[in-house]
Amino acid sequence: MVRLDKLVVIGVGLIGGSFALALKRSGAAEIAVGIGRGRSNLDAALKRGVVDRAFTLQERWTTELHDADLVLLATPVGQMPALFTAMAPHLGPRTVVTDAGSTKQDVVAAARARLGSALPRFVPGHPVAGTEHSGVAAAFDALCRDKQVVLTPLPETDAAALARVAECWKSCGASIRQLDPARHDAILSAVSHLPHALAFALIAELGARADADECFDLAGTGLRDFTRLASSHPDMWRDICLANRDALRRDLAAYRDRLRAIDALLEARDGDALLALFARAHTAREAWIERQSGGDEV
Amino acid sequence: MVRLDKLVVIGVGLIGGSFALALKRSGAAEIAVGIGRGRSNLDAALKRGVVDRAFTLQERWTTELHDADLVLLATPVGQMPALFTAMAPHLGPRTVVTDAGSTKQDVVAAARARLGSALPRFVPGHPVAGTEHSGVAAAFDALCRDKQVVLTPLPETDAAALARVAECWKSCGASIRQLDPARHDAILSAVSHLPHALAFALIAELGARADADECFDLAGTGLRDFTRLASSHPDMWRDICLANRDALRRDLAAYRDRLRAIDALLEARDGDALLALFARAHTAREAWIERQSGGDEV
Repeated sequence: MVRLDKLVVIGVGLIGGSFALALKRSGAAEIAVGIGRGRSNLDAALKRGVVDRAFTLQERWTTELHDADLVLLATPVGQMPALFTAMAPHLGPRTVVTDAGSTKQDVVAAARARLGSALPRFVPGHPVAGTEHSGVAAAFDALCRDKQVVLTPLPETDAAALARVAECWKSCGASIRQLDPARHDAILSAVSHLPHALAFALIAELGARADADECFDLAGTGLRDFTRLASSHPDMWRDICLANRDALRRDLAAYRDRLRAIDALLEARDGDALLALFARAHTAREAWIERQSGGDEV
Repeated sequence: MVRLDKLVVIGVGLIGGSFALALKRSGAAEIAVGIGRGRSNLDAALKRGVVDRAFTLQERWTTELHDADLVLLATPVGQMPALFTAMAPHLGPRTVVTDAGSTKQDVVAAARARLGSALPRFVPGHPVAGTEHSGVAAAFDALCRDKQVVLTPLPETDAAALARVAECWKSCGASIRQLDPARHDAILSAVSHLPHALAFALIAELGARADADECFDLAGTGLRDFTRLASSHPDMWRDICLANRDALRRDLAAYRDRLRAIDALLEARDGDALLALFARAHTAREAWIERQSGGDEV
């Protein structure tokens, strides 16, 4: 089993907090140090026992890095370049760095430009897990249980560093997949970034209607589930959408074409083609849910 | 409390079956008769005790109508015009008819054209409740508890008929709202029909990708919730989208404009405007969830 004397988590939110909790509770991490922007979230993390010490970015947090076994960056991806720059001179020779960003090409490029000789000990990662809630208050040690963590190692990534990061996530209950960063970003655009953008767009559109209150009053659980993603952290999603904008714009364009095609079927009152489209989607979703869960969706 | 000696449900699926179950279990309905297209679903309804007798549409079902206190039409809306025509000559002088269709202007127009002298005893209705599952196997007596039922009475609707239908839904635990049929359709297009079309469209789009399997394999709970509506009954939704196509096409156009605006922000890398949009949506959704539930979303 993996054994860390010291874990440093930068960004003690849903992901970072859940990672620290899981590793501490399983005994995989002896000490966890939390670093973040706001004092109140860090105080909450200390109070919950998620971390043992905590520093804001205004304090001397970089002194915690040289003897750390692992540093997890779990901030919005837009903040990572500056953090890499600040970290680089303070990383010890055995310190492995990983991240939990939802996009990988931008994070890899920033690490490459800023981590210097520490680059081989950087393991880019993305736990495909989360809820729409944020902050350490939303963290729980089972967040990644039975979830997938994608690692996108570079050609120069050290094998031992990769293994250490993989073992940590496995000790959280996750399974590991390796992907090329560009493939990761293309897939996650389709299955995560696009749906988030669509959910934000729908709520923005409904909220802008003259009859918005009446609409929300009559909305049922369907709209609630459909728009759950629009309760996600706006800063985090601004960063993700910008970081992965090429893939997201391609997917948005394809989706708009699909909506245009549905509109054409409505205009033509083509019930057969509409039914065929809905039935194809229905079948595809049922097959996916069946594969994922053995059909236990409730 | 309302008391029906005989309830007839045409379309013993999720809504019709749940209505019959709730009324029978509460003692509000003495006998429930089920009518439907397929024998196997009716047999399942008999076996579960949802109905006491059952007839397919190929059998002599219309003989059950003349002494019924209430007939609920809970089929896809596209089947209602032909059913009104078949029912009209057999309705008794005390028989009240209602429906559970998700669109109201088309159902009202069909009733007006086909129910003849029974029209004042027709009460158009729509229980805003449901799951993505269908058939009597998915029915449960609490489906409408704490849900809203919209009734859209006509100028000629009999007050006693309206009261009887309202009392039945209240005995299922629902609250009643009255709306003009056109307002109903405009609102439901925005909060239900559009999200369904968007969910079907996203799954159709993902399923058509060359890397569809890889995408579905990496998708998390976000996509699962976002697309739950795409597991809804394709026939039913073909009918709804066609029946409410004017409102739906307006809403689709506005939504596509919203997506075009988001794309323009991505193209311009306008993080501030993107954040403002996401934050506005986030705030609107949180306020809505708070109002609906006292914030108890899990």
